[in-house]
Amino acid sequence: MTPEQKIIELGIELPEAANPIGSYVNAVRTGNLLHISGGLPILGDEKYLGQVPHECDVETAQKAARLALITRLAVIKAELGSLDQVARIVSVSGFVNAAAGFTDHPAVLNGASDLLVEVFGEAGKHSRAAVGCSSLPLGVSVEVSLVVEIKS
Amino acid sequence: MTPEQKIIELGIELPEAANPIGSYVNAVRTGNLLHISGGLPILGDEKYLGQVPHECDVETAQKAARLALITRLAVIKAELGSLDQVARIVSVSGFVNAAAGFTDHPAVLNGASDLLVEVFGEAGKHSRAAVGCSSLPLGVSVEVSLVVEIKS
Amino acid sequence: MTPEQKIIELGIELPEAANPIGSYVNAVRTGNLLHISGGLPILGDEKYLGQVPHECDVETAQKAARLALITRLAVIKAELGSLDQVARIVSVSGFVNAAAGFTDHPAVLNGASDLLVEVFGEAGKHSRAAVGCSSLPLGVSVEVSLVVEIKS
Repeated sequence: MTPEQKIIELGIELPEAANPIGSYVNAVRTGNLLHISGGLPILGDEKYLGQVPHECDVETAQKAARLALITRLAVIKAELGSLDQVARIVSVSGFVNAAAGFTDHPAVLNGASDLLVEVFGEAGKHSRAAVGCSSLPLGVSVEVSLVVEIKS
Repeated sequence: MTPEQKIIELGIELPEAANPIGSYVNAVRTGNLLHISGGLPILGDEKYLGQVPHECDVETAQKAARLALITRLAVIKAELGSLDQVARIVSVSGFVNAAAGFTDHPAVLNGASDLLVEVFGEAGKHSRAAVGCSSLPLGVSVEVSLVVEIKS
Repeated sequence: MTPEQKIIELGIELPEAANPIGSYVNAVRTGNLLHISGGLPILGDEKYLGQVPHECDVETAQKAARLALITRLAVIKAELGSLDQVARIVSVSGFVNAAAGFTDHPAVLNGASDLLVEVFGEAGKHSRAAVGCSSLPLGVSVEVSLVVEIKS
């Protein structure tokens, strides 16, 4: 099953890629790598705000990570025409809006990482760094950026 | 107008690239990519310290982001000989020394992003991730690192 | 002296590379670059926890950065067979679990950077960004990720 077929099977409807507000863009291609801007867990009426774990619990933050990743899949599709053009997910940077003393960043980011492997299979297995941030843009709970290798 | 001409038109005097204190360097080239170390908003007597927004307001933090970027332009020039050797600004990582609950990281980082587009035009449009940090080196308000594609 | 010989001279015993818990992997190769996941300062009974500088002082945090880096060297060796296959350390991202107002992130990260130069010599000199995080996975004091160029 291709990534595009898998997205349908999972019942995920990819949104239009939103335009960044400012002098940056959603993604830049250099060689066969696509560098993708940090994405936020906001889509239509669905959004995830607040610091983890007190204002947003771990389970909810996992959904935030998944949604942030879905907005990144939308960017990949907009840039490449199809998710099937992805050769490999190279790296994911996961930023959690997290209180001092929070320790469960990996579980939060698995909301994004698990979806990458569901959609892309072996090609979705990526390197990752997960860290806690004192705050994030618009007050979101999670931000996710990534680097993707494109089929040549 | 070339980036070098644009810098002159903007009245920006690029400083000498300062040497890092420690076992790292300002930039490493791999293939046609230049990975540039995190830069701080300190130049001569001008420096921007403190947490955003209470110790350093958003407007001041934008100037900090711009100054941090200017120190990175100095690194690019020192490495490549000329800003005109830049093919594309690939990605910018923007770190704001930010209080819990701060939400306006994108506005802060636009101080750097806007300057990139002023100097490099379309080639200055980059992918970006902006996050809040609990603290930054030397107490600065903003830190900026980037990856640049070099003309071959 | 090769990096492998240097590791022996330094009396460092590289551990087995631990498997990440989750849908990500220790490292992904793309072209001649190896992107390595964030590593934590935990190895057997040795671990470094707590916020810098109050729960973990700078000197201890330097040891944490060094240990986190040693776990990354183990990953490089597991991926490439030998540290001697490294052409260049391209970039290091250093994350310090740091209190508001902390300023000495560079000193902490030198624990990792100095070891890279000890082991790889000139090829170990890297670009670097060091920032403060509100918290880190498992409560560790330091996390380190890196990008490495491989000999072709």
